[in-house]
Amino acid sequence: MELITWIIPAAGLIAVAFALYLARDVMSRDTGTPEMVAVGDTIREGADAFVKRQYTTIAMLALVGAVVIGVVIALVETADVADVPSLAGGPIGIMTAIAFLVGAACSMASGIIGMFISVRSNVRTASAARRSLVEAVQVAMRGGAVSGFLVVALSLLGVWGIFTVYEAVVGEVTVAQAPFLIVGFGFGASFVALFAQLGGGIYTKAADVGSDLVGKVEAGIPEDDPRNAGVVADLVGDNVGDCAGRGADLFESTAAENIGAMILGVAVFTIASTAGWPHPELWIFFPLVVRAFGLLATIVAMFFIRGSETEDPMNILNRGYWVTTILSVGGLAISTYLMMDTAGTTANGLPVWLWFFFAGLVGLATSVVFVYITQYYTAGTYRPVREIAEASRTGPATNIISGTAVGFETTFVTAISIGVALIASHWLGSMAGLENAEGVNVGGIFGTAVATMGMLMTCAYILAMDTFGPITDNAGGVAEFSRSESHTREITDRLDAVGNTTKALTKGYAIASASLAAFLLFSAYIDKVNLIQTNRGGELLTAVNLADVGVFVAALIGAMLAYFFSSLAIRAVGKTAQSIIVEVRRQFREMPGIMDYSQRPDYARVVDITTRAALREMVAPGLVAVVTPIVVGLLLGYQAVAGLLMVGTIAGVLLATVLNNGGGAWDNAKKYIESGNLKDEHGNPIGKKTDAHAAAVVGDTVGDPFKDTAGPSLHVLVKLLATITLVLAPLFIR
Amino acid sequence: MELITWIIPAAGLIAVAFALYLARDVMSRDTGTPEMVAVGDTIREGADAFVKRQYTTIAMLALVGAVVIGVVIALVETADVADVPSLAGGPIGIMTAIAFLVGAACSMASGIIGMFISVRSNVRTASAARRSLVEAVQVAMRGGAVSGFLVVALSLLGVWGIFTVYEAVVGEVTVAQAPFLIVGFGFGASFVALFAQLGGGIYTKAADVGSDLVGKVEAGIPEDDPRNAGVVADLVGDNVGDCAGRGADLFESTAAENIGAMILGVAVFTIASTAGWPHPELWIFFPLVVRAFGLLATIVAMFFIRGSETEDPMNILNRGYWVTTILSVGGLAISTYLMMDTAGTTANGLPVWLWFFFAGLVGLATSVVFVYITQYYTAGTYRPVREIAEASRTGPATNIISGTAVGFETTFVTAISIGVALIASHWLGSMAGLENAEGVNVGGIFGTAVATMGMLMTCAYILAMDTFGPITDNAGGVAEFSRSESHTREITDRLDAVGNTTKALTKGYAIASASLAAFLLFSAYIDKVNLIQTNRGGELLTAVNLADVGVFVAALIGAMLAYFFSSLAIRAVGKTAQSIIVEVRRQFREMPGIMDYSQRPDYARVVDITTRAALREMVAPGLVAVVTPIVVGLLLGYQAVAGLLMVGTIAGVLLATVLNNGGGAWDNAKKYIESGNLKDEHGNPIGKKTDAHAAAVVGDTVGDPFKDTAGPSLHVLVKLLATITLVLAPLFIR
Repeated sequence: MELITWIIPAAGLIAVAFALYLARDVMSRDTGTPEMVAVGDTIREGADAFVKRQYTTIAMLALVGAVVIGVVIALVETADVADVPSLAGGPIGIMTAIAFLVGAACSMASGIIGMFISVRSNVRTASAARRSLVEAVQVAMRGGAVSGFLVVALSLLGVWGIFTVYEAVVGEVTVAQAPFLIVGFGFGASFVALFAQLGGGIYTKAADVGSDLVGKVEAGIPEDDPRNAGVVADLVGDNVGDCAGRGADLFESTAAENIGAMILGVAVFTIASTAGWPHPELWIFFPLVVRAFGLLATIVAMFFIRGSETEDPMNILNRGYWVTTILSVGGLAISTYLMMDTAGTTANGLPVWLWFFFAGLVGLATSVVFVYITQYYTAGTYRPVREIAEASRTGPATNIISGTAVGFETTFVTAISIGVALIASHWLGSMAGLENAEGVNVGGIFGTAVATMGMLMTCAYILAMDTFGPITDNAGGVAEFSRSESHTREITDRLDAVGNTTKALTKGYAIASASLAAFLLFSAYIDKVNLIQTNRGGELLTAVNLADVGVFVAALIGAMLAYFFSSLAIRAVGKTAQSIIVEVRRQFREMPGIMDYSQRPDYARVVDITTRAALREMVAPGLVAVVTPIVVGLLLGYQAVAGLLMVGTIAGVLLATVLNNGGGAWDNAKKYIESGNLKDEHGNPIGKKTDAHAAAVVGDTVGDPFKDTAGPSLHVLVKLLATITLVLAPLFIR
Repeated sequence: MELITWIIPAAGLIAVAFALYLARDVMSRDTGTPEMVAVGDTIREGADAFVKRQYTTIAMLALVGAVVIGVVIALVETADVADVPSLAGGPIGIMTAIAFLVGAACSMASGIIGMFISVRSNVRTASAARRSLVEAVQVAMRGGAVSGFLVVALSLLGVWGIFTVYEAVVGEVTVAQAPFLIVGFGFGASFVALFAQLGGGIYTKAADVGSDLVGKVEAGIPEDDPRNAGVVADLVGDNVGDCAGRGADLFESTAAENIGAMILGVAVFTIASTAGWPHPELWIFFPLVVRAFGLLATIVAMFFIRGSETEDPMNILNRGYWVTTILSVGGLAISTYLMMDTAGTTANGLPVWLWFFFAGLVGLATSVVFVYITQYYTAGTYRPVREIAEASRTGPATNIISGTAVGFETTFVTAISIGVALIASHWLGSMAGLENAEGVNVGGIFGTAVATMGMLMTCAYILAMDTFGPITDNAGGVAEFSRSESHTREITDRLDAVGNTTKALTKGYAIASASLAAFLLFSAYIDKVNLIQTNRGGELLTAVNLADVGVFVAALIGAMLAYFFSSLAIRAVGKTAQSIIVEVRRQFREMPGIMDYSQRPDYARVVDITTRAALREMVAPGLVAVVTPIVVGLLLGYQAVAGLLMVGTIAGVLLATVLNNGGGAWDNAKKYIESGNLKDEHGNPIGKKTDAHAAAVVGDTVGDPFKDTAGPSLHVLVKLLATITLVLAPLFIR
């Protein structure tokens, strides 16, 4: 049955081919009226300028990072601590640096191509909206799916490729050692994701807040008015944050969690080898195979994105999601059965594979649960958003207080769901009864890994829905800019609202996967530390003892890091917005023709200034994220780092939940009032241009940097902590 | 040298006598004009009504709590797990219930008496302000000191008393067992503190927000206008939150931390007994003696509260604080030398006592550091508050974003300071070289306990400064209400501003002490668990392993609890404020004479309604706080509870820091603008009634429930988690 592993490159290549097919399909669509083309070109130029500058900077940072990592690893991975002693020092340093670069390159490639298609789908979606809702949904979803497939396929192919090369080509490396050698890939992905998400998040919200303040507040012109030189930067920003940023975030998730799961698979591999089960290496390949099935399921689901013109577009997208989920259940059953049946049955008479199948189901179910939790907390149909809208009656202060209370409240069901998922998958895994030579049941941890993989099966689809967001948001902007007829704008508005929901869902999904990943990567870190300790004859790390003063202080620092990092990210938005305000003001002053439409604002200059400012402002939070775990590790040691990692993850996940859901709820409370759902004492709707609406706008503006900058950056922070400590573990052991 | 322990009751009784002397002194002062007396009486009546209803409710809850605790302990403390096997079951249940009741009663008594004096000092301070700034400072500070001394003295006498009774009177109890038997005292104090702080916090901010909304926003009359029926409730609220609430908070701190330190002292006692050092029991009494010295130092400092009329009143208070601190250093030196010199010298030639003296100094220094950190983040003279004021130029949204960034940022220096204090005191303590029979160095943990005690030495002074806050705030209200001359109001305004600072400082102090306490109480919990395990022959809890899935999930739940509890507390404020709005509206409607001053609003009714609503709304968060650790303990076991406790503490401390300092900074950003410090482009001050000021008012209103309800309640939550798990430990071991 080792043939099944060939599904990994096969599914990866099929997904890439399918992405190219979708891209071709999108590109072949008409681009609408000349006005639409003109607006689309402006956005595209702005995005190209951003991509060029942003990824040049990130590429340089990644090169520097690779050299530093290579040198450090070459120095610390001496023969007594190296995963493969014969490769100690230089060779392992070079291999780690290469893995880092490949991970960084794959992440960047998927980000760049995703952006490329996203900023070309927007105008085509707007054009399609002139004819049909369903067609517009299809164009936007296919454009989004290009990102989704590329991100997941490149991460799958990348991990599989580097694993295969290191294992097959470098003679000394066994299949059980290779997972440890490719952690650099995950770190490279994390590194790119940190800067892509931070830079993108700062850019998008600075453009949003900056252009609103200078346009709406100062110049008194409407939102998205073409006379405002900052508006294009705002439209570019949507792609930058939600497409490139979230893409990098989930690229990192799939890559890092995959490698973590493979490392945990090594423990089962050892048991399988000792027991003489055929093809023990399948336990290491298992995570990759599961994800390959997920990719195939998503491809099929793309053909179910159809419906009637009168249908709620969210239903059309949900249909595809459920197809993906149900097919994934099948894929999970096939892969667990085919790859694990060799392990026989447990003492209670049930086959081993069945327990892991159930653990995988827990992961899939968790992903569904999070999709619905996020809907409950951020959609106008439920209590939380209504409560905030009601509080807006008494002004901005009560709106903010109420939104904060809602944001805080969302941690409850989040923590409980994650807790249940972890305990359930751990219990199911441990029921498989896989005991190693020391009598330790390794099935529990592997069960959580299988759950994480189950959750990630739907990743490509979720990501397609996410990128659907900026595409439809942009399509709305294009329709507005090109003064399309009201019928078209009605459709783009509906799609825009759906896009807001899908963007929020993706954040919920990203958070849940980050939490499950935490436990998995943390366990991988302990495995790595113990591998080093075994080589060196040191004491094994059997427990991360919170009662140890160093671990406790590191845990405190980890929890603080989430706040401090968010503080820097939020402040960066303010500073960057300031640059935009200064420039737009200058254009209003020096180009008086702008106000009567006789002069065209210099959109590109604002994009360029915003890009530069965002890149400059991402340095401080980026450095804090990278340096803190290293400093704590050097000062307090490897056990303390584990404390930092675990509690930092808990704090980061919860704070991100608060920021994402609070921000989403504020956003939709504003929309709730705008749609006339809030009534005065006579039952008449309180709409726009009322005090309650103004209060809700304050909440929405406050929520913007929370949900689009700090929150998503925290996802990345959490995983970066995991990969950086995994790669640099030898540095912390003395 | 066992004579030194007599300083404990002596200092306690002297402090009580001194408090009575101060109370007599305050009461003998003149109460000013008949108008002042009238206002003072109204506040006093409102406060009396609140105290009566609030403490009746709490007393009933405490009675129920005592019975439940007694029964549970009687059931679970069977002979094989009991601290004193011969007292297993019923007797130990009764003893725990009695300790619980004594703790609850002492806490309630100090709260009630403190309130009694506080609401009588306000009018006398206002009266004194007609003559002299210094005299007004003295009256307010002496009134505040009554609370300060009573809280600390009653907690000292209570712990000492119940310890002495249990050890001396109950024959079977040895000095090493008694500390474990009095944990009920700490739990009783926590229990009262939870409801006093929650109820008080909800009351004070609901009254504030509710009366502002209905008066300023709806009726268009100024803040603190006597026509607003909610204004008296607001003035009462200041006493309720800052005097009764914070008093209960710090009563709990001193009590619980003391008992925790005594439990840790048992480990050293065992070493001392084995080594044959004279009077080994002194190690258990040490924490009490240190605090007795702190009390005496504070008494002396009260005589240094003097200065000139032109001096900044904060200077006068700071002078007393420094006298307390310096005398405490002396007291610390005396007590460590006298009580620990028997331990001889360490391998490096330094005496053992010197290391612990240094550890105590770390605690004292931490208290000073926190006083200055809080000033930096919440006073208008520094960057953070200015930044928020600047952000107010562009409206409420940027004000909120900036304040949130500042709040988040404050966690950095907080976490680093606590981390340094813990590691330094642990290292100093471990240098003392106290190894137990198993070769474990117990000095480190005891070092952190000594540091905590060092920090608590200045508690009475800090608490006096805290209660100074509501007294001067009320004095300002009295001056306003009684339409005093501008000279008087100028003085009360200055004192009010100082009071805001001292209230903020106290919260910083309370947070720092809660953090140090966490580690200490957590260690006491482990000691308690291991005592039970030893009796039962179970496996000792040597590590709280975060890598265990149950511990990790419990940690996640602990961190979530901080958010969820705050969410409930914040929402409770909103609901209670609603009741006030409804009632004040009714009065405006049904008593038309109010607006032209011909009818007197029914202040008492608003007070009563607010009290009842606040008591009702505190039930949900209170229950969550009490039930969560019990449920987690029953489901996931005793190791998981330790994870919940530690990570819950970290999360609670950091979130409280964010809420307290963010709220304080918003408050002072508003004051910064009101004082004309924010300038327009021509250099003219932007004062009241501008858009920037309106934006700053939004921030201030948002910050109110953060800094006065949720933040302070989190301090209590953190310590409640510790005491509840300590008392119920046997329940979680199966």
